[in-house]
Amino acid sequence: MEALARASVTVCPFVRSQSVKALRQISLVEQAKACPFAGTALTVREYSSSSNVRKASAVPLSTFKSDATGHYSLTGKQLAEDQVTVNPAFAAEKGSNESLFDYSGFLSSELHKKRQDKSYRYFNNINRLAHEFPRAHLAEEQKKVTVWCANDYLGMGNNQKVLDAMKETLDTYGAGAGGTRNIAGHNQHAIRLEAELAALHKHEASLVFSSCFVANDAVLSLMGQKMKDLVIFSDELNHASMIQGIRNSRAKKEIWKHNDLADLERRLAQYPKSTPKLIAFESVYSMCGSVAPIEAICDLADKYGALTFLDEVHAVGMYGPHGAGVAEHLDFEEHLRAGINNIRADSVMNRIDMVTGTLGKAYGVVGGYITGKRDMIDWFRSYAAGFIFTTSLPPAVMAGASVSIRHQRATISDRVAQQKNTRYVKSNMSDLGLPVIPNPSHIVPVLVGNARDARLASDMLLQKHNIYVQAINFPTVPIGQERLRITATPGHGPEFANELIDAVDSVFKELDLPRVSDWAASGGLCGVGSSEAQIDANVWTDAQLKLTDKDLNPNVIEPEIAPNVVSSGVPL
Amino acid sequence: MEALARASVTVCPFVRSQSVKALRQISLVEQAKACPFAGTALTVREYSSSSNVRKASAVPLSTFKSDATGHYSLTGKQLAEDQVTVNPAFAAEKGSNESLFDYSGFLSSELHKKRQDKSYRYFNNINRLAHEFPRAHLAEEQKKVTVWCANDYLGMGNNQKVLDAMKETLDTYGAGAGGTRNIAGHNQHAIRLEAELAALHKHEASLVFSSCFVANDAVLSLMGQKMKDLVIFSDELNHASMIQGIRNSRAKKEIWKHNDLADLERRLAQYPKSTPKLIAFESVYSMCGSVAPIEAICDLADKYGALTFLDEVHAVGMYGPHGAGVAEHLDFEEHLRAGINNIRADSVMNRIDMVTGTLGKAYGVVGGYITGKRDMIDWFRSYAAGFIFTTSLPPAVMAGASVSIRHQRATISDRVAQQKNTRYVKSNMSDLGLPVIPNPSHIVPVLVGNARDARLASDMLLQKHNIYVQAINFPTVPIGQERLRITATPGHGPEFANELIDAVDSVFKELDLPRVSDWAASGGLCGVGSSEAQIDANVWTDAQLKLTDKDLNPNVIEPEIAPNVVSSGVPL
Repeated sequence: MEALARASVTVCPFVRSQSVKALRQISLVEQAKACPFAGTALTVREYSSSSNVRKASAVPLSTFKSDATGHYSLTGKQLAEDQVTVNPAFAAEKGSNESLFDYSGFLSSELHKKRQDKSYRYFNNINRLAHEFPRAHLAEEQKKVTVWCANDYLGMGNNQKVLDAMKETLDTYGAGAGGTRNIAGHNQHAIRLEAELAALHKHEASLVFSSCFVANDAVLSLMGQKMKDLVIFSDELNHASMIQGIRNSRAKKEIWKHNDLADLERRLAQYPKSTPKLIAFESVYSMCGSVAPIEAICDLADKYGALTFLDEVHAVGMYGPHGAGVAEHLDFEEHLRAGINNIRADSVMNRIDMVTGTLGKAYGVVGGYITGKRDMIDWFRSYAAGFIFTTSLPPAVMAGASVSIRHQRATISDRVAQQKNTRYVKSNMSDLGLPVIPNPSHIVPVLVGNARDARLASDMLLQKHNIYVQAINFPTVPIGQERLRITATPGHGPEFANELIDAVDSVFKELDLPRVSDWAASGGLCGVGSSEAQIDANVWTDAQLKLTDKDLNPNVIEPEIAPNVVSSGVPL
Repeated sequence: MEALARASVTVCPFVRSQSVKALRQISLVEQAKACPFAGTALTVREYSSSSNVRKASAVPLSTFKSDATGHYSLTGKQLAEDQVTVNPAFAAEKGSNESLFDYSGFLSSELHKKRQDKSYRYFNNINRLAHEFPRAHLAEEQKKVTVWCANDYLGMGNNQKVLDAMKETLDTYGAGAGGTRNIAGHNQHAIRLEAELAALHKHEASLVFSSCFVANDAVLSLMGQKMKDLVIFSDELNHASMIQGIRNSRAKKEIWKHNDLADLERRLAQYPKSTPKLIAFESVYSMCGSVAPIEAICDLADKYGALTFLDEVHAVGMYGPHGAGVAEHLDFEEHLRAGINNIRADSVMNRIDMVTGTLGKAYGVVGGYITGKRDMIDWFRSYAAGFIFTTSLPPAVMAGASVSIRHQRATISDRVAQQKNTRYVKSNMSDLGLPVIPNPSHIVPVLVGNARDARLASDMLLQKHNIYVQAINFPTVPIGQERLRITATPGHGPEFANELIDAVDSVFKELDLPRVSDWAASGGLCGVGSSEAQIDANVWTDAQLKLTDKDLNPNVIEPEIAPNVVSSGVPL
């Protein structure tokens, strides 16, 4: 072992950073699992015995040695040199022996930091099976697991109508769109999808983007760049895509405490009413499951003259009688009766200026969008670089998404089943004292509290129990709030749920992870074990969970395109 | 007509901005075609007689009236008020009668500007038909046109192997990926595609993004944000995605004159060698077809210690014996002989640090990627928000792209046919004095010189000749350099080409557009009619255009995944 350790010093940054004493004390086999080189080989050996699979997904260990020698060239001397900043004014005097910037050393150091703070990400090879939903196979086809953390929330990714529409569109219109929306990439599939989305949200128009990350980034960037003096009020838990868009907009921003109306109002009140303002927030926050007080935020927006920008990415398809999201859910009975028709002007949906959503989660395909007033959408269409200068989504993707939205608009049973399955998991886990972070939505976050245990728990669930739940670590959640994030779908009925609950219980026992009572003893965290924590009522009421597809107004699926909506904000 | 004009004043910003005298003099019918409301209806009436199509894609005029009334509320008074900037210091004193920001007026004004400077975009409804490539239908299925401006450069969007792979993957693995790469969205399709891409470019690793817009934006942003003191040297004609990434990186930037090595070197020499530097450029510039002096840029990068970032979006699939792009093409004979194996360390491909490319143009599907050294790719994988926080591309998209790349790696005939068809169009147009902007690539830019005529020519080609070529106007090209941008594919043989050439000739006659001799008389523009303009030799030589698939080294398609590449920079 000493000889191996000595040999490793020349190639392995981990070994090099340890003292000889430390190396003697640690288990190198355990450490090897965290090593990107040896770890890969170990993982492959665990999961794969067929040479065919190895060929497709693994890398022979022999190839690492020479590459690794070349890449891990970071030395103390080089690092020290990097810290000497040379004054550009001396550029003219630079000699030929002046050393170049050490890019390789920089990269090694950046990656080393990720590994040191445990935020380095290891991807699991998960192949979700359409005909065995919610099962998937790992690298080896025979090795199957149940997926409990995907965002294909309603299982629409395996809906036969969606798959048929996609296959027919592939046959007739080919694989790709062939251009940007302006150059050969605008077609009937885009027109129909945008009309469908506008109708879903009962807004005037909509615009489809490559993803909702791009939609949020492109729209928020544009607004801050072009709308002089705009101030953006952003919930502190907003998604990375919104944070990036706001940052890139370079607009003045006010980060308000999560769901804290008093803090929001205090910040809004600092500015004259004539100052343009935008309140950016989400309906369902995906990592903790909390839900925004949308109506109260609209009241503040009215009072202070702000636009409202609502990200319903983790809500569309799943809330509201037709799946338009939490904004629709807040006027549930009226929308249920109205079907496709709009209701009063001051409904929550009508009060929201912009909704962004995704076609890649509950709708099961891929892509993102924004809906809003005609001029607003036309402005994005005309100015947003992330929309203009990129290839359109494939016709088959747009056709599949349209069918998926249409199906979910006319079906309430999937939404009901998802909520029931979620309640089953939450209540049974709570009965066992498992620390589910309380929330009123479909997210089931189970608190672990540190990165190492969260990853161990996830690995153990996968390897021992054939259950896939990804650990959620920093920077996705704050340090100390690491968790397992579980999501149920209509396909995760009691049988699958019981397996999950037993497995999580067993892993918590084996790793001796804190339960609700332990968190309570230390004062509670994230609402777990906190006696004073306010528990919001579930978004879906018990009465709503009794509804069936027959309770939907049949006009929900007609006409083909509502007469009051326009694709892409007007011009065809 | 006077009564109509008076009535329009209340709802139409165009009419309102004109004097009564001007209104009397203009043709309202002609103007109506440029109006987003009336224009839509006119266009639909032209193309559609079936009520079914109208229902799917058009909007009844009756719906516009009331909406328009509500939206065009911009008045002179409001505009004047917007220009009064209220000092935030007076916020505490604001009264309840303080007027709110006029969002609707702002939007109307922004859109009005677009229409005034003729950069407002009208999308054509183009439905490209897989089994009639390169034909498409318009809104009405019976109305067919030939598409001469798509970026499905090799017709891979209708390749049966690609379509079959996508359909099989849909059946087995469903419509969407179901999550981000870290959470349930990493699978064998991603692993295979990234291995395929790394093998294509003979680089160590690769990373797939939603699009190459996202890849360029995410990677350049990250590098400038994280690599302290980085200076980015950007070609002035770089694509909007690179410009956005560089802007968002907030790094110091030096914009060098297009393809001007002296200007680039002068700028590089201003900084010490130890300052980190990145040279960002494209191989084929898509709007003019120029090609970068890649080797000479690599020489400068070596000399001044800079990284090279090469966007091969408009080259992958089409240049090099295996379609890896212009970097491969520059060592054509060696790569032809070597097949999948790498060649000497100082080959152009090996000298380029990062290549970005697309799966949505020559490969016919959708998506983008970057390739490079293992640590570099792992760094992007670990830090780039645009990669981390977004849903993976669907398994079917990734499977289709893999098959497309594999097919093009093992087939040279499509590349040869595309170049031959391009030469046919260029030389026959030149014989007629049509102003093709000279360039050594597959792009056929035909100079028009103003936005109005470019759009008229495009409309006339579509309506009179059933040929779709989009007009390219500002901001995609500078004002005064507006053009028609034509692209040939292997499917655009002499028969289609003759139709196109006759049609363009006829449109140039009918609109009396300037030909080469006219441009020469006024001193030339963009190399058209300029006697001193240097004409670069075609990238594809005459000898290379004689090659057939049999000339490829058969090892090009084996092994399944090259042993020296790793998916996603290491961890599986």
